[in-house]
Amino acid sequence: MMNMDQIYLVKDIEGYSPHISRLISMMNYARHTTLQAVENLTVDQLDYLLDDQSNSIGALLLHCAAVETAYQVGTFERRALTDEEVARLEPALNLGDRARAEIRGHEISYYLNKLDEVRARTCELFRTVDDNWLHFEVPFWDGKPGNIYFMWFHVFEDEINHRGQIRLIKNKIQL
Amino acid sequence: MMNMDQIYLVKDIEGYSPHISRLISMMNYARHTTLQAVENLTVDQLDYLLDDQSNSIGALLLHCAAVETAYQVGTFERRALTDEEVARLEPALNLGDRARAEIRGHEISYYLNKLDEVRARTCELFRTVDDNWLHFEVPFWDGKPGNIYFMWFHVFEDEINHRGQIRLIKNKIQL
Repeated sequence: MMNMDQIYLVKDIEGYSPHISRLISMMNYARHTTLQAVENLTVDQLDYLLDDQSNSIGALLLHCAAVETAYQVGTFERRALTDEEVARLEPALNLGDRARAEIRGHEISYYLNKLDEVRARTCELFRTVDDNWLHFEVPFWDGKPGNIYFMWFHVFEDEINHRGQIRLIKNKIQL
Repeated sequence: MMNMDQIYLVKDIEGYSPHISRLISMMNYARHTTLQAVENLTVDQLDYLLDDQSNSIGALLLHCAAVETAYQVGTFERRALTDEEVARLEPALNLGDRARAEIRGHEISYYLNKLDEVRARTCELFRTVDDNWLHFEVPFWDGKPGNIYFMWFHVFEDEINHRGQIRLIKNKIQL
């Protein structure tokens, strides 16, 4: 899916509609930079907390996978998460104390596998829809309309936001 | 330019071509979240350094304005920055020691005015081009091709990355 020769191009991708292609292009670059930021991190680095209110890099990675899973359900199935799904995605989805306590001790491969697995499913699902689907509007935050393009933009924009934090945390790790 | 009723919609905007409209939609949301993160910060908060290798929130805001200015020149004039332009955009463009020493003592309005001024010019310039222009490819990083859509995606993706850092720094300010 991620063609490194095309990583600086936002353009058509075979098998996907025009706007979905551009969305995937941007998601690919965002993911590329996330992977660059975390490759070779040790378990101790992935678990490191700047202070008792901070998120570890590992928790932020698992959060990105959880957010993407939640938006798969929200946009392709157009429904809220079930209690079982919420239970499975927590504590990564909302981070905080439980994430600090429970998301620990994993190798980088654990997080990367989660991210890969969710993304592969997203790319499969994107093949089944088109640009009309992408622009479908529903009531969203603050009672304002949101469209599906925005929701998937938000998925990668949340990842970029956390990648910025991951870079900053990585620079400050003292082990 | 930023219609808050449409802030969760990535779609056509009157006066702009389809792909440029979507790009502006995403830039608007990114900017909206940047502004939310920094509104009401005091000069001391804007100048605060987590440690002697960190960037202040003020410097990160000025960096976003400088990056956008640099890409205006690179994409609309398709040329490198002149020495005079680099001198004017530094130290915000590359951050580091000089930025820590020199970007200080400004009220939030100083940074917001810079951001607004550059963005207003970007939006004017986007009216003069179309989707063909947006997909024009040139040799870019690592000798790989990059297109103008990617370059502008990078402008807002850099801002989101730094907004993530701004949120983290803000939570850790001790004054």
